[in-house]
Amino acid sequence: MSSDRASLIRDLSDEEARAALVLKWGDTEPGTIPAWVAEMDYEVAPVVREAVAAAVERGVLGYPPLDRAGGTVAEAYAGFAQRRYGATVDPAHVLLTADVTVGVRVALEVLSERAPMVLPVPAYDPQHGLGKVTGLEQWSLPVDLDGDDYALDLDELDRLLARGARTLLLTQPHNPAGHVHTRAELEGIRDVVTKHGARVVSDEIHAPLVLPGAEHVPYLSLEGTADHAVAVVSSSKAFGVPGLKCAQIVTGDDATRDRLVDTPLAHNDSWGSLGVVAAEAAYAHGDAWLDALVERLDQQRSLLRSLLAEHLPEARTWPLEATYLAWVDLRAYGHDDPAAPIRAGGVRVTPGAAYWPGLAGFVRLNIATSPERLTEIVRRMGAALD
Amino acid sequence: MSSDRASLIRDLSDEEARAALVLKWGDTEPGTIPAWVAEMDYEVAPVVREAVAAAVERGVLGYPPLDRAGGTVAEAYAGFAQRRYGATVDPAHVLLTADVTVGVRVALEVLSERAPMVLPVPAYDPQHGLGKVTGLEQWSLPVDLDGDDYALDLDELDRLLARGARTLLLTQPHNPAGHVHTRAELEGIRDVVTKHGARVVSDEIHAPLVLPGAEHVPYLSLEGTADHAVAVVSSSKAFGVPGLKCAQIVTGDDATRDRLVDTPLAHNDSWGSLGVVAAEAAYAHGDAWLDALVERLDQQRSLLRSLLAEHLPEARTWPLEATYLAWVDLRAYGHDDPAAPIRAGGVRVTPGAAYWPGLAGFVRLNIATSPERLTEIVRRMGAALD
Ligand SMILES: Cc1ncc(COP(=O)(O)O)c(C=O)c1O
Ligand SMILES: Cc1ncc(COP(=O)(O)O)c(C=O)c1O
Repeated sequence: MSSDRASLIRDLSDEEARAALVLKWGDTEPGTIPAWVAEMDYEVAPVVREAVAAAVERGVLGYPPLDRAGGTVAEAYAGFAQRRYGATVDPAHVLLTADVTVGVRVALEVLSERAPMVLPVPAYDPQHGLGKVTGLEQWSLPVDLDGDDYALDLDELDRLLARGARTLLLTQPHNPAGHVHTRAELEGIRDVVTKHGARVVSDEIHAPLVLPGAEHVPYLSLEGTADHAVAVVSSSKAFGVPGLKCAQIVTGDDATRDRLVDTPLAHNDSWGSLGVVAAEAAYAHGDAWLDALVERLDQQRSLLRSLLAEHLPEARTWPLEATYLAWVDLRAYGHDDPAAPIRAGGVRVTPGAAYWPGLAGFVRLNIATSPERLTEIVRRMGAALD
Repeated sequence: MSSDRASLIRDLSDEEARAALVLKWGDTEPGTIPAWVAEMDYEVAPVVREAVAAAVERGVLGYPPLDRAGGTVAEAYAGFAQRRYGATVDPAHVLLTADVTVGVRVALEVLSERAPMVLPVPAYDPQHGLGKVTGLEQWSLPVDLDGDDYALDLDELDRLLARGARTLLLTQPHNPAGHVHTRAELEGIRDVVTKHGARVVSDEIHAPLVLPGAEHVPYLSLEGTADHAVAVVSSSKAFGVPGLKCAQIVTGDDATRDRLVDTPLAHNDSWGSLGVVAAEAAYAHGDAWLDALVERLDQQRSLLRSLLAEHLPEARTWPLEATYLAWVDLRAYGHDDPAAPIRAGGVRVTPGAAYWPGLAGFVRLNIATSPERLTEIVRRMGAALD
């Protein structure tokens, strides 16, 4: 382990974090440690921040390029995908969009048949509103939280598609479970989906944050997926710039790309000019910083394991294979919403019910902070549930 | 006329404009003067640019505040509306949205009955795609381009609403016509709309740019509009920051506000963190610079008048009462698309058909540039059509 590398990651002081992270820290009462929304208490990669600052200095505050497919971000993403995932992406198949939520919504609206969509749960909270927004009926595919591992129930997926669902919203790596789908799991999903002629929208926003021991397999890198899937990706989560508004929709063939390009501008033209600058810088020049981040998060997940053993020995967690969001089963402590006493005890985590309406006893814990803060977070959690 | 005041506005050099305005200039071949998309060749107001640069320095690149209504931008907008339009706006009735196009779309999707909408034409080009995106049928309300003044045909509006249309998309001040609706005109519209129990979405993005001689009357400031209308407003157009992504939906009552707040986050949560910073700075501290801009644009419209008289004496234009976009009737010069020979002659303007599909002989000309460039633009246009 090279701690030199991880030291590229600079922790923000409380004061800096409060000034920078206007949602995560700004919306949390002073004295409480925020460990909720998926943002990191680290300085943004200098290579990204400097590119953005230079663009502001040049006055790049007006409309961004309106390439609907291809362009500089697409080129940079293709290079990133090749280097980091060994995946070949045609830049001409990559479109810009404002953020991952918008990209998923637009993909569902433009590409999906007017038939139910399948949402595996637990699921990132705004995904639960997608049915209402897109007009698609939304069917849940619950994951067995008492099982030994985290995997989609392919028999149930098969049944839902047989009953008429036509789109699967896949999130991989997964939030909040931290699960990285293996190639074999993804092939199993693909086989069920193709059997029914259904479609996949794959939210891969957490892909750059796969931790040692796991490997990100882009869904579109599997054979036989190009005509039925899109991935929605972004540098925003790994590089801490979701406020700048630029994500990408990756398509696998011309036909899918053209359908998305042909939707009216009023449907999808809201990416930001500085988001474009940040995405280009991150994808083209962010590897060294990202390597350091992954190493730091790997250290944080080890620390989490030992802190939980010490302060919350009855907690169950899933292997944290990617990202910095731990899905924690606190049912043993007997609270419907453990996030409430935890907040009263000085830590803000997200209630599990945000990801699975009605689910009791779970929380999601954000570990992308300093070792000191993480130590204090778990200590306070333990005290709060004691 | 105080030319001191107008001198607060600093013209960008060609080199600066090409670096800053990556769409307007970056997407135009070198040697051609860009006078198409609605962006200005002026330095962004220092008070706005400095606020954005300071926010980048603090690291405000993550998620913005997620207040769905109210908040700092809403407060700043209420102050701006009071000072500039004499209108009283309750900040708790103001919501954030990514940009005006998104705000209009969300308002139509959340508030409008599933019945046809009326679009007065000519109309800002992306508005023509709103029917397809929202699923509402779109009925045109053509303006008489041979008439003496620019006004909506209230009898025709009455007929369209009687036939079942339920929403009017109003754009005031108007792009591309530069028309500022008078209070009497707006009252006439309101009376027809209320007679049919219909709804108005009022795109008021150009409101800050009303020029001397005209007055902006917010549609919602009229009596009897609060329950059937929203306005979509932004500081982005007047202050040159549309790439930062923050506009506002202004509602007139709690019920309308609540319906918009209740739409899932995945429908409307994509405003940018620096857009929030820019909007606050512009609304709270931008008055002096905006006064100077209005004075400069007033000078530009006088210059345009004399340049047209000299170089394009057969051109007809409408009184440019607001903004910096002149709607020019070049039918006398006998080209279906005068923008084509004009571009060959070294100036890029927007074809009239972008605003009114099939319309021949018109162009929209952007005059927000230096007097020298505007002089050269009109000289080249005259030579191209000679
Ligand atoms: C799985 C998933 N998708 C989407 C998002 C949101 O992305 P964006 O801010 O680009 O909409 C998140 C944020 O945490 C996420 O975890
Ligand atoms: C009338 C009108 N509405 C909306 C817009 C676009 O605004 P935004 O960039 O906020 O979507 C423009 C841009 O020129 C416009 O003229």
